[in-house]
Amino acid sequence: MFGRTYYCGEVTEQAIGEKVSLKGWVQRRRDLGGLIFIDLRDRTGIVQIVFNPEESKEALEIAETVRSEYVLDVEGIVVARDEATINNNIITGKIEIKANDVKIINEAKTPPFMIEDRTEVSEDLRLKYRYLDLRRPALFETFKMRHNVTKSIRAYLDGEGFLDIETPILTKSTPEGARDYLVPSRVHPGEFYALPQSPQIFKQLLMVGGFDRYYQIARCFRDEDLRADRQPEFTQIDIETSFMSQEDIMAMAEQMMKKLMKDVKGLDIELPLPRLSYEDAINRYGSDKPDTRFEMELINLSEVVKDSGFKVFSNAVATGGQVKAINAKGAAGKYTRKDIDGLTEYVNRYGAKGLAWLKVEENELKGPIAKFFDVEEQKALRAVLEASTGDLLLFVADKPKVVADALGALRLKLGKELELIDESKFNFLWVTDWPLFEFDEEDGRYYAAHHPFTMPAREDIEQLESKPWEVKAQAYDLVLNGYELGGGSLRIFERDIQEKMFKVLGFTEEEAKDQFGFLLEAFEYGTPPHGGIALGLDRMVMLLAGRTNLRDTIAFPKTASASDLLTDAPSEVSKAQLNDLYLSLNVRK
Amino acid sequence: MFGRTYYCGEVTEQAIGEKVSLKGWVQRRRDLGGLIFIDLRDRTGIVQIVFNPEESKEALEIAETVRSEYVLDVEGIVVARDEATINNNIITGKIEIKANDVKIINEAKTPPFMIEDRTEVSEDLRLKYRYLDLRRPALFETFKMRHNVTKSIRAYLDGEGFLDIETPILTKSTPEGARDYLVPSRVHPGEFYALPQSPQIFKQLLMVGGFDRYYQIARCFRDEDLRADRQPEFTQIDIETSFMSQEDIMAMAEQMMKKLMKDVKGLDIELPLPRLSYEDAINRYGSDKPDTRFEMELINLSEVVKDSGFKVFSNAVATGGQVKAINAKGAAGKYTRKDIDGLTEYVNRYGAKGLAWLKVEENELKGPIAKFFDVEEQKALRAVLEASTGDLLLFVADKPKVVADALGALRLKLGKELELIDESKFNFLWVTDWPLFEFDEEDGRYYAAHHPFTMPAREDIEQLESKPWEVKAQAYDLVLNGYELGGGSLRIFERDIQEKMFKVLGFTEEEAKDQFGFLLEAFEYGTPPHGGIALGLDRMVMLLAGRTNLRDTIAFPKTASASDLLTDAPSEVSKAQLNDLYLSLNVRK
Repeated sequence: MFGRTYYCGEVTEQAIGEKVSLKGWVQRRRDLGGLIFIDLRDRTGIVQIVFNPEESKEALEIAETVRSEYVLDVEGIVVARDEATINNNIITGKIEIKANDVKIINEAKTPPFMIEDRTEVSEDLRLKYRYLDLRRPALFETFKMRHNVTKSIRAYLDGEGFLDIETPILTKSTPEGARDYLVPSRVHPGEFYALPQSPQIFKQLLMVGGFDRYYQIARCFRDEDLRADRQPEFTQIDIETSFMSQEDIMAMAEQMMKKLMKDVKGLDIELPLPRLSYEDAINRYGSDKPDTRFEMELINLSEVVKDSGFKVFSNAVATGGQVKAINAKGAAGKYTRKDIDGLTEYVNRYGAKGLAWLKVEENELKGPIAKFFDVEEQKALRAVLEASTGDLLLFVADKPKVVADALGALRLKLGKELELIDESKFNFLWVTDWPLFEFDEEDGRYYAAHHPFTMPAREDIEQLESKPWEVKAQAYDLVLNGYELGGGSLRIFERDIQEKMFKVLGFTEEEAKDQFGFLLEAFEYGTPPHGGIALGLDRMVMLLAGRTNLRDTIAFPKTASASDLLTDAPSEVSKAQLNDLYLSLNVRK
Repeated sequence: MFGRTYYCGEVTEQAIGEKVSLKGWVQRRRDLGGLIFIDLRDRTGIVQIVFNPEESKEALEIAETVRSEYVLDVEGIVVARDEATINNNIITGKIEIKANDVKIINEAKTPPFMIEDRTEVSEDLRLKYRYLDLRRPALFETFKMRHNVTKSIRAYLDGEGFLDIETPILTKSTPEGARDYLVPSRVHPGEFYALPQSPQIFKQLLMVGGFDRYYQIARCFRDEDLRADRQPEFTQIDIETSFMSQEDIMAMAEQMMKKLMKDVKGLDIELPLPRLSYEDAINRYGSDKPDTRFEMELINLSEVVKDSGFKVFSNAVATGGQVKAINAKGAAGKYTRKDIDGLTEYVNRYGAKGLAWLKVEENELKGPIAKFFDVEEQKALRAVLEASTGDLLLFVADKPKVVADALGALRLKLGKELELIDESKFNFLWVTDWPLFEFDEEDGRYYAAHHPFTMPAREDIEQLESKPWEVKAQAYDLVLNGYELGGGSLRIFERDIQEKMFKVLGFTEEEAKDQFGFLLEAFEYGTPPHGGIALGLDRMVMLLAGRTNLRDTIAFPKTASASDLLTDAPSEVSKAQLNDLYLSLNVRK
């Protein structure tokens, strides 16, 4: 047996007549009229091997014992297939390999599921046998794309003078934001490292250190209650620069994405990318990450209905709320009363108390609330909502946040149900002019909308302490098809502004010093203006690969309860290990 | 003020007459005859700015207030320097910038040390102010080189079809080997993740998954007692392939290193790289990672002295020990009796009970032990040691391991003291044919010399359980200038061999299943033969950059006690954080 001459999926007619050596897995075996056909698979695809007694009786005998997923080393001659057996669906479909030698490198038990793109088995089973799941061609292709994504991004950033710098994984715990994963120290009893939620502080310190342009494809960690699209560890494309304006940074990120889309998808995207202010995004789409692949925008009717006889509407406006609607074009016939009850339940989840609706007929609006609107009012509604016969109008009257959340979600749901979304589109969008703070009514305090290092808009700095709710951030999010790809900001680089920021966030002077003293001190030694952006790699790959499950983009992902079903992590450790760390458990195991 | 037009270090005569905008840090300010000269620095170098009252009085006034490390935004015209003031040591030395506008972007306190390559301050102070330390040009150049190293390696591996795949950081604790860092789980009370000591198992599972060629520039973690050249987190270039022989993998790694040396150092290295078996390395250099930039090999004298009247020698041979010597050419005059006492103390540290010595004179050997050797014996020693007048011969008689350790270390020490080492050389070397196991006399058990997944030599498999001490590994280490750059091996891919391996290592069947059951199971589903190599990136950069401190290659390194002096990690965490993790401390804080 000699070394591999071709990958399975790459043997074409060019190779006819060549003696080849192939190595791979048995996709399937068929016995047919004294011959044996084996589809041999590797990461590049499949090639057909034929064993026949004239060529080699020994090889045929070995082939008879072979089963699915056996690992074979095959030697043979590439021959053209008969016209009748040509398979134009695969690259190797015009040839086959006449085997004259075969060796079983390793055997295989019957796998718990078939190695095919379409698989119906539970995800838990696939995760337990992840190494078999990874053999499925579509999954492999996703990781190849992931490789190509980082390759394209590294090439772009290298060309622009960015240096790839690694920042620590064992770092300091900072209570702001999500929960840290902690790592007990053996050398320092009772002390802990934390795994970083992002390299934020270190990349800023690199700017203080004059590095000027930094990037890293960085692992980050968040001990949050997981949702379907969250992982305890995730990867971000982390970029920071000095002496660049917000416009400079956005333009650079756009160029990077343009190159990426060309390299990975072969698509030309047009620059500059569209922009929406945060306020407009909420007003028009009810979302800070709008999917702009379809319209169906939220229309504000507060003016039109503020004096309406329909008290639900007029009262909402009178008490500081809003009335907004979406027009589901041509959907009147597609939604029965019962369907609409379902939509009502759906918006209830977003806090909306109800969902009013009207169907547009030639001469009138129909529906339970139609009677509250006289002819003039109906005309006004039609005009503002650009309604035509057959449209379904859906209204929410509530506090602005509830209206946005409910109608924003309903818009997406209807967009999918009505098949308004062109899945081949990649709609990028910047969302800008974010508020600097979010007020949390439960805690009665302000939180940083992005993080505590975001630079306020220069013209708002005076109001940082007096009117924090009015302060805008020099921040920008990049949105793709309704997903937040990532975001960035200019950072605070002056000690006094950073101190004020901590104060608004409720830090005492001592707390600020305790947790971020080193950063405040760094700001006193000649800190340049700086800013950057961080993009989520896992989600980016998911969207570019057209997948819907974030776990398909991570080689060894964890479940929603943060378990690795393959290695069985986390797991118990020995008493000795705990003693080394000066720890005891408050739980009986 | 407009955007930066040049980096400071890149303004040359080509730009004379141009109006430029520069941003950077004040390296120094000199006031001279009514003018002010400022050396402005950024990551590319330094440029001289001149402020004079004719050009701009306002700018001059601002410049008067400027101190070291202030961040400036300067506008001005590039002009040629007077012949007399040209500085040929720097790229920008033929020009200067006549400033017509300047803005202080940020001020700076007096830094705790000067931002210069030669700095005398303690490393602790430099680490506490790492962001200032990083401004030193030599340190920045090291990180630029690190970027170029990974760039070259990624380009090579990408070209060879390797995919960059990320493996988990939150993984399962396995007691074999060094101590794991543990991460308590909040969702699974009493359970822990471990940070990986290497991606070993995951990369093998990727091979089981048919990925064929994997690489990763991977962060690894080891909770060991630190030495000067160890860090709790370190980075390795981690490579794994399927269906390749040991020769294939070594050849590939050589090509990668050849390209790297060309890309980063502009050097052509000759392939194939030299090789030594483990046994020869120990015999000839007393080290498994010999520095071959100089000779002074260990010479075995056991045959020559076995019947010597010098009982220390003859007894050593009679009791299964060895007598070996090194010949320090021409060093007789350089080492006094007292110096040699110092060398004796040095070899004591390696367990040698003594260091015998002889100085070679024209007609005789001189020294305390000379009298034990008659003329014939002296002649024989001279011949075997290739001794000439003026040489210093140094002998150790002891158990083979002590002889190797002591003389190996002494050889390196003398090599340095006698300046035998050509620091411009990059001597690569493969060390092959490693033993599979090491016997630990204290624990009375075998340990895996590399790791438990290393494939035994095919011809030794029969003896795996019966004579483990004789079993060789299909393993190879890459050595550079006396440092282990990294190592690799073919891996076990058959369940029964892996099970035997665990047995020899003292695992009960249950322990093996408990810790590595998923791997043993994976081996049953069609595992390809596979192997790889892992190279230490930090150390590689250290050697290529000609530095001696591993911490200079890591942006934010930790001290020997695993502390980050900048952020003060590890640190105490709140009671609430501990409660969330079901932990209490066995130490009063």
